[in-house]
Amino acid sequence: MDFEFQNPTRLIFGAGVLSRLGEVARGEGRRALLVTGGGSVKRNGVFARAVASLEEAGVAVVAFDGVEPNPRLSSVIRGARLAQAQQCDLVIALGGGSVMDAAKVMAAVVFYDGDPWEMMVHSPTGIRLPTRALPIITVPTLAATGSEMNKGAVITNEQTVEKSFVLADCLYPRVALVDPALTLTVPPDQTAFGVCDLITHVTEGYFNGVDGTPVQDRFAEGVILTAMEWGPKAVEDGQDLEARAQVQWASVVALNGWVQAGAGVAGFPVHMIEHTISAIHDVAHGAGLAVVNPAWMRAAARVRPDRFAQFARRVFGLESSDPLVCAMEGVVRFEDFLTRIGCPTRLSHLGLDGTLIERYARETLQAIHDETGRLPGRPAMSEAELIELLREAQ
Amino acid sequence: MDFEFQNPTRLIFGAGVLSRLGEVARGEGRRALLVTGGGSVKRNGVFARAVASLEEAGVAVVAFDGVEPNPRLSSVIRGARLAQAQQCDLVIALGGGSVMDAAKVMAAVVFYDGDPWEMMVHSPTGIRLPTRALPIITVPTLAATGSEMNKGAVITNEQTVEKSFVLADCLYPRVALVDPALTLTVPPDQTAFGVCDLITHVTEGYFNGVDGTPVQDRFAEGVILTAMEWGPKAVEDGQDLEARAQVQWASVVALNGWVQAGAGVAGFPVHMIEHTISAIHDVAHGAGLAVVNPAWMRAAARVRPDRFAQFARRVFGLESSDPLVCAMEGVVRFEDFLTRIGCPTRLSHLGLDGTLIERYARETLQAIHDETGRLPGRPAMSEAELIELLREAQ
Repeated sequence: MDFEFQNPTRLIFGAGVLSRLGEVARGEGRRALLVTGGGSVKRNGVFARAVASLEEAGVAVVAFDGVEPNPRLSSVIRGARLAQAQQCDLVIALGGGSVMDAAKVMAAVVFYDGDPWEMMVHSPTGIRLPTRALPIITVPTLAATGSEMNKGAVITNEQTVEKSFVLADCLYPRVALVDPALTLTVPPDQTAFGVCDLITHVTEGYFNGVDGTPVQDRFAEGVILTAMEWGPKAVEDGQDLEARAQVQWASVVALNGWVQAGAGVAGFPVHMIEHTISAIHDVAHGAGLAVVNPAWMRAAARVRPDRFAQFARRVFGLESSDPLVCAMEGVVRFEDFLTRIGCPTRLSHLGLDGTLIERYARETLQAIHDETGRLPGRPAMSEAELIELLREAQ
Repeated sequence: MDFEFQNPTRLIFGAGVLSRLGEVARGEGRRALLVTGGGSVKRNGVFARAVASLEEAGVAVVAFDGVEPNPRLSSVIRGARLAQAQQCDLVIALGGGSVMDAAKVMAAVVFYDGDPWEMMVHSPTGIRLPTRALPIITVPTLAATGSEMNKGAVITNEQTVEKSFVLADCLYPRVALVDPALTLTVPPDQTAFGVCDLITHVTEGYFNGVDGTPVQDRFAEGVILTAMEWGPKAVEDGQDLEARAQVQWASVVALNGWVQAGAGVAGFPVHMIEHTISAIHDVAHGAGLAVVNPAWMRAAARVRPDRFAQFARRVFGLESSDPLVCAMEGVVRFEDFLTRIGCPTRLSHLGLDGTLIERYARETLQAIHDETGRLPGRPAMSEAELIELLREAQ
């Protein structure tokens, strides 16, 4: 183990903490770009409460709404231009992962010279990371991406039909104001997709990290076990605040770096494949992950059965003298769990007929620019292997 | 769950990272107070390597050595005065928990008006927290206290024979440079005490936190399981770098707040009792904990058998239809583990005959200043209960 870790975000967690938004924002700026998505926060009154809290604290609000699912680069640029024109000194994201990711990148684009796509990992001309951003406050309304307390953001370039991500220290939010009561109105399907998303964040690190990270293994298993215990309750009864809080806390720690610290994760292959699919088809990210993850796990388990047998043993209590049998049974159980909470687990469940599988594989590898021509992960996979695993997911 | 969390410390972890001290320090200051303890870092060459790295980077060194185990307020004040006289703009701690705690408080005393004991929880005149400190860099040479990446410090007032602690945001180190190779020369007994210390940090939160924190439960169990797997290897073969690294990483996460976030821990009763004992007898902190913790656990398990049965089940794989039986067997297993790695588990093993037990109980409660007259924890315990549990530890 040889690594660095720093996450400076101040987390404020608890039902009702939305009411502290004004006070918290006042510590960071005077004029906030308030970024939202498709309108649900306006319909359910959350937007009005946020604005009231901000105005009461003397923080002016410049609203930017309409960030789409799988947020587009053009929206990010429009938001940044609005922040500049309105001389905002603070960006507040009120929404799900798309809103948070878009808002974080807007905060950096304000100071970024040139084409913002160059800050993305998939930049064809090489990555030029942003080094400065407006202060960011995240207020998630969905338990899923963990974007509220990390330095990452995923953006779609609608012109090139690519979905890519940026990781930069200046994107750490100053404050993550995490109020699980805001997720009470999330419908069952979106709730289930969020559970799948958070579990997938953890499985990516668990299966693609270096050997010999026992603390991280236990942390990962702990997040998965908690999500599997409380996720179904949140899906079943959206008004169960306790379940909402447990799922949301699990989603925060799933990707704030605590689980992955020191794990030396080789890649997020399931995310990479899913990003290609959702860039083309605009499916919900968590739903796409539910299709890709079990398929990827089956392929990887054949290569590293011991690792997947540990997962099967510790998460599902399975035992077998044959690690591969145990490993494969673990994947079946995981897939059953996803089905039980209402996630799709096949391309056909997403309404996709599989005719573009070769394109998914090819474009996933193209986006990565990896000189080996393989998708980073354990194991690194070739185009043929990606095609094969996606065929099994039809 | 309703809580705030922020830990801004930058962690650099890995065998050999001591060589980066100069480069890292250069980012924080130009003239460092370099705080060390009883001389082992001078004998084994670590001090010379640290100084060489600092001087090469152009950071001047003002050495302060001789911080004692259970570091004294007078030493802290002397160090702070030296830093002032020498115009240091940075404090570097190179040593174990005592050195780190003393150095952190020195960094704050530099800016603190009046009696530094007033920053301590046990201040008889009320707590006056420090709000400013010199930048702090910690370089632990022992895996135990976790002080390298948190905002706490424990100091002994030798005049009043009290041991107390301070928790203040300005005490977060800027950088924790954690090099497990520095722990290769720690003797077996100190290694074992460190393992006990780190496990106790976790059990305090686990047994004294609020109900309904499943992620934190799993994290705590993960740290304990890792320490129980790798601790004996580090005790057995001090040169086992892998074991040293695993134990040290476990010690960092045991008290950097990740395990306790949201757990609403009511108190650290085992630490409070041990602090009284080590303030009077100057025993090693980890050794004192090994005596007090199982005794406290037995007393608490009688009140909350289900909680301790969960510990027994998840950590030791025990099952029983009677939670109290399961709980008590878990404590026996834990005590057996401590004995196996060479920790004392009775007051007599520390050379103490038990004649001062009533004083330990009385002074522990006096130090707490709790208006209920009970030691905070689950359950909160009266003086009579403390006496009874300590008698069982004779």
